[in-house]
Amino acid sequence: MTLKFVKGESDNLELAKGRAAFVLVIGNTKTANIEGITVAGANPELIKYTPPADAELLYHGKCLSIDGVPATPDGKPTPALITYTALRLTSIPLFVVNSGLMVPPKIPYIDLNAPVGENIAESRAMDREKVEEVLERAKIVGRQLSKLSDVLIIGESIPAGTTTAAAVLKALGLNAAVSSSMPENPVELKRKVVERAVERVESNDPIEVLSAVGDPVMVGVAGIALGSEKPVILAGGTQMVAIANLIARMGEVEAVIATTKYVASDATADLSLSPFPVIASDPMLGKSRYPGLRAYEEGFVKEGVGAGGMTSVAYARGITPEKFLEEVEKDYERIVL
Amino acid sequence: MTLKFVKGESDNLELAKGRAAFVLVIGNTKTANIEGITVAGANPELIKYTPPADAELLYHGKCLSIDGVPATPDGKPTPALITYTALRLTSIPLFVVNSGLMVPPKIPYIDLNAPVGENIAESRAMDREKVEEVLERAKIVGRQLSKLSDVLIIGESIPAGTTTAAAVLKALGLNAAVSSSMPENPVELKRKVVERAVERVESNDPIEVLSAVGDPVMVGVAGIALGSEKPVILAGGTQMVAIANLIARMGEVEAVIATTKYVASDATADLSLSPFPVIASDPMLGKSRYPGLRAYEEGFVKEGVGAGGMTSVAYARGITPEKFLEEVEKDYERIVL
Repeated sequence: MTLKFVKGESDNLELAKGRAAFVLVIGNTKTANIEGITVAGANPELIKYTPPADAELLYHGKCLSIDGVPATPDGKPTPALITYTALRLTSIPLFVVNSGLMVPPKIPYIDLNAPVGENIAESRAMDREKVEEVLERAKIVGRQLSKLSDVLIIGESIPAGTTTAAAVLKALGLNAAVSSSMPENPVELKRKVVERAVERVESNDPIEVLSAVGDPVMVGVAGIALGSEKPVILAGGTQMVAIANLIARMGEVEAVIATTKYVASDATADLSLSPFPVIASDPMLGKSRYPGLRAYEEGFVKEGVGAGGMTSVAYARGITPEKFLEEVEKDYERIVL
Repeated sequence: MTLKFVKGESDNLELAKGRAAFVLVIGNTKTANIEGITVAGANPELIKYTPPADAELLYHGKCLSIDGVPATPDGKPTPALITYTALRLTSIPLFVVNSGLMVPPKIPYIDLNAPVGENIAESRAMDREKVEEVLERAKIVGRQLSKLSDVLIIGESIPAGTTTAAAVLKALGLNAAVSSSMPENPVELKRKVVERAVERVESNDPIEVLSAVGDPVMVGVAGIALGSEKPVILAGGTQMVAIANLIARMGEVEAVIATTKYVASDATADLSLSPFPVIASDPMLGKSRYPGLRAYEEGFVKEGVGAGGMTSVAYARGITPEKFLEEVEKDYERIVL
């Protein structure tokens, strides 16, 4: 199956046949500085450039802040490639939201003036006051964009985001294993970081959890979803499950999570914890002639930059999986090879 | 007449009955530091806060960066009040674009990473390379927003913007008198500044003119209009006439200028120089019980922050002038008094 609900059901994807906007929320957490916690970047220095470079790729078909494209140390390319193809095929407009970046992208972006997230292994992630302020700003963005749209599709890019997601889920009392961009998920390392982080959480109030163990991208995504006057598609895997649980405790949002089948078939990614329906799409990369793309099927990278959500939207709009793979490969050839 | 074409005709206003977005482009030019050139601020120190404060007012019904609201030294309030009422009545979404601000607003905004404009009496306004870069970024913004809209309404806020507008028109060989936020337009002072500025212009190429004697808000507005895939309403007076002449030399845009009748009936504001049709609306402030609002009819302030354009859109959507004045007065009472 190329597109199926793995939890519940929702019509939100149908709405994406009308006027839809894709909102990419990007930021950084210093949690990514912990050695071995993330492969969202070819080396530690490059990791901080991954979110802005992903965003640049979506607008320009190439990165402006780095040479080449974001990749894992062993060369698996960013899922932004898949999102790029989906945006190109659907002509859905893109809005980039800077929610706590270390380095701003060389493209226009909506600035929430969010702080970079602190390393949750060492300290609380963000000032509570700042979190509340960014949340209000993000709500404004969600409200304005939703007035022009039938549905908002919200994606993310933040290295080490699955670690902060695990911490948020645990702090909310949801005992989740958490997915990763590596097939050999560094479970033990993450578990230790999460354990230490969660000790700092003083209550299960969602703002407290965000401030103590979250990251700025979660604040941006949550605010945009909460501010939206229309349904939203949370485009992502376990990070969106964590954000969804925060959102569900903060207000009424008609949401669905849309991710890749690579996340859905990962035993360490517990999508059943989502308070909203979850749909998974197969971007067909397992059938690719290119090893760099086939790697997704083998458990590398798997999701990010809204790839699963935008694949779902492309399919909902009638693009066949075969055509989609063909176009992803074309872009891969032009952009990466 | 509360709404009439003063030049040509256009259906763009009709489009604003559908999905419309209001884009407020704000920035600063150091030209505003010339003593006596602008009254867009109660004192010289406050002038730089006028654009961010205007934008904050539109979202929150109050300013966050200053006490009270932007006003002239003798207390005439910002035209953002009129735009605020129009946005409130029409529910049209607002997007704020930072195109060269000295101080960013305390609200979410789209950042074009534009430079603050230099004082055109003393030097060239902006690096040409930077202008081209900002123009490209602004085109992206226009393209994305226009995909969700039937028409883009673009307004501006930049103190001393009528002076840079006069310089641009002169550099393009259009000999215009230029409007001002003062009834006693400091014509002689402006003329001297413009004369000196225009000496630096090396050709009538629009990018050269912008770089030599323009301001960053012009770059943002021009780029958004050029990038738009839908018609645009340039909401403003002589500043939009200058920008319109630049746009018309740079590409194909289906545009109309929408301003207030206070500008249209100002002999120093030559709307006939517009390459696009021009419509003028009467916000009825001459009939207000409040002297601060009646001042507009007497030639103070007259226009800005898209007030004339948004009044036109409100009227096109069926709000009667009487109702509009009533609502403007309500907001004036709540926000200013």
